[in-house]
Amino acid sequence: MSPIVGVIGGGQLARMMIPPAVELGIELRVLAEADGASAALAATAVGDHRDADAVLAFAQGVDVITFDHEHVPQAVLARLVEAGVAVHPAPEALAVAQDKLVMRRRLAALGAPVPDWAPVTGAAELDDFIAAHGGRAVVKTARGGYDGKGVKAVRSAAEVTDWFRALDEDGRGGALLAEEQVDFERELAQLVARSPSGGFAAWPVVETVQRDGICVEVLAPAAASTATSGAADLARSIAEGLGVTGVLAVELFETTEGALLVNELAMRPHNSGHWSIEGAMTSQFEQHLRAVLDLPLGTTDARADWTVMLNVLGGPEGETLPDRYPAALAADPDVKVHAYGKASRPGRKVGHVTAWGSDLDDVVARARAVAAAFD
Amino acid sequence: MSPIVGVIGGGQLARMMIPPAVELGIELRVLAEADGASAALAATAVGDHRDADAVLAFAQGVDVITFDHEHVPQAVLARLVEAGVAVHPAPEALAVAQDKLVMRRRLAALGAPVPDWAPVTGAAELDDFIAAHGGRAVVKTARGGYDGKGVKAVRSAAEVTDWFRALDEDGRGGALLAEEQVDFERELAQLVARSPSGGFAAWPVVETVQRDGICVEVLAPAAASTATSGAADLARSIAEGLGVTGVLAVELFETTEGALLVNELAMRPHNSGHWSIEGAMTSQFEQHLRAVLDLPLGTTDARADWTVMLNVLGGPEGETLPDRYPAALAADPDVKVHAYGKASRPGRKVGHVTAWGSDLDDVVARARAVAAAFD
Repeated sequence: MSPIVGVIGGGQLARMMIPPAVELGIELRVLAEADGASAALAATAVGDHRDADAVLAFAQGVDVITFDHEHVPQAVLARLVEAGVAVHPAPEALAVAQDKLVMRRRLAALGAPVPDWAPVTGAAELDDFIAAHGGRAVVKTARGGYDGKGVKAVRSAAEVTDWFRALDEDGRGGALLAEEQVDFERELAQLVARSPSGGFAAWPVVETVQRDGICVEVLAPAAASTATSGAADLARSIAEGLGVTGVLAVELFETTEGALLVNELAMRPHNSGHWSIEGAMTSQFEQHLRAVLDLPLGTTDARADWTVMLNVLGGPEGETLPDRYPAALAADPDVKVHAYGKASRPGRKVGHVTAWGSDLDDVVARARAVAAAFD
Repeated sequence: MSPIVGVIGGGQLARMMIPPAVELGIELRVLAEADGASAALAATAVGDHRDADAVLAFAQGVDVITFDHEHVPQAVLARLVEAGVAVHPAPEALAVAQDKLVMRRRLAALGAPVPDWAPVTGAAELDDFIAAHGGRAVVKTARGGYDGKGVKAVRSAAEVTDWFRALDEDGRGGALLAEEQVDFERELAQLVARSPSGGFAAWPVVETVQRDGICVEVLAPAAASTATSGAADLARSIAEGLGVTGVLAVELFETTEGALLVNELAMRPHNSGHWSIEGAMTSQFEQHLRAVLDLPLGTTDARADWTVMLNVLGGPEGETLPDRYPAALAADPDVKVHAYGKASRPGRKVGHVTAWGSDLDDVVARARAVAAAFD
């Protein structure tokens, strides 16, 4: 029998699991939010991931449930576990990725280096934090943020009055997360994979370049420094400490003093690992499938000196990426284009391009030339 | 709009078009022979490729029709063309791949080097051919052969009495193809791609190792010789001479005198090109999609010094390939395994493995070790 992996969520991460599933002969079933999802080809069901009955019905007959995103409520996950369904990553691990306050507490308990932080429940508390941190802070909502949403650099609590009001209206006694604004040299991401029986693999640490809180460029590997040498061990200690299974992405700051601080965690394939499709011996999507099925993991070595991934944000107005292929593919026959089957919208991730070679400047220039064809 | 490619036939070649179609955002629709076909994930219709109405209905709304095999009758292809459907390769080109006698005539007309050959309609004629060629010949049925079926090395016409009888019963005045048995050093395959507007790309020529008429091992590239240096130009002259669009595989003999002779043609992705999935900048499956959509072609350079592909024939009795993954994937974390979602049967191609590296002997040994896990 083919192993069956059920993926909750039908976005581009689920979509990019389809190719390795096809190659490995793994049956992929996707619970999509709506018709026409990015992973529509493998969408065997359409339903709400907050609806326990819909999720339980979807999970019938699969060997393991995994995720395209971190938004499945713990109550729904608990129902899956009760029903005897294998869930990877497990609910206890996922809880840490679902709530940034929980994440900060757990990382601190593990001894992982993190920026100075505090939960803040009101304006006075936040202004005190700001005053104690050079007159500035980064405020984050504990839940629901992504791609720069729910994250704000502030100099006064007055800039997030609406967020405090939303907390009050929510009535669950929550808090916002206040963090010191880190002076960083650059941002890094360390991707690792871990299987239930303890198999572990780390890709080369990469540099991520963000614009407005959205990842726009990934350079693999990150140019070596004192900080990069510790990234894999740090990610391993987090993966093992939290019991993560599948792919774990650890977003990191490399500070101006050369230290590593953990910024965010994601427990699924991650934008910072898209380069691995062509650039590594085993892609993050293949590895995630192998890991959640508790199969032996593949090698994660880079296949080229440098691999560069650029997100295509927004895309050509009123067109799809393939409409531009006559120009884009002609621009460089060595660069690989990935389209997510999503309608173009300002700022939306609709695809990415990947280039590789032995000269970093040349690789970046070639990737940018192809990406520019989609502007 | 996403471009839509319709593939007639749901075997592993259609299946392996799914990953690049997903990555490029191309919609793939497959007309499969039956439920549960290898390319079932993209099977939008089940029907008989000899049924013109079924094929025409399937072709509604696609941008181009292409093929997983060469068995669609010319009458059906003519109906598609009449209906204004783009068909690549075109029926006139496909006709050459559908009938080995037509192929020999057309190749001879193009001046391509071929083994001595003759159409033979009866035993006496064949025995004369055998006598004139050192007491032996290879006899082939003009149509319908694959993987060694319909091909027989003989020393007497009596060995193919049943084939002559079938010709007589067919009543269409056909003939068998008699060919000299070539003393070859090794077998090669030259894969090329050509687009309707004349784009052309050639992969490195490879060595194919056959057992009982079935390809078991492909070494990419073939070790260089006088013969290999002429393979790409020869394949280009054939592709252009016959007007082939999409991928063309030219199976070749390298004779003991170091000359090239054309053995067979296939106008579709081909077993000898499976190595290109990991081994080349652009795989034959991605390139076929780009070519039939008349998009710019990708680079075909090899990504490693040596890439070796081994077919998994038969597969583990009473099991599927994934049943053996715990052992097979652990055997070598660098080797890639491809499963076709087909039930194991003696001699059947059910998957393949690919390894690459800088030392050929090592690469072959590693691929064989993983393939052995499926015996």
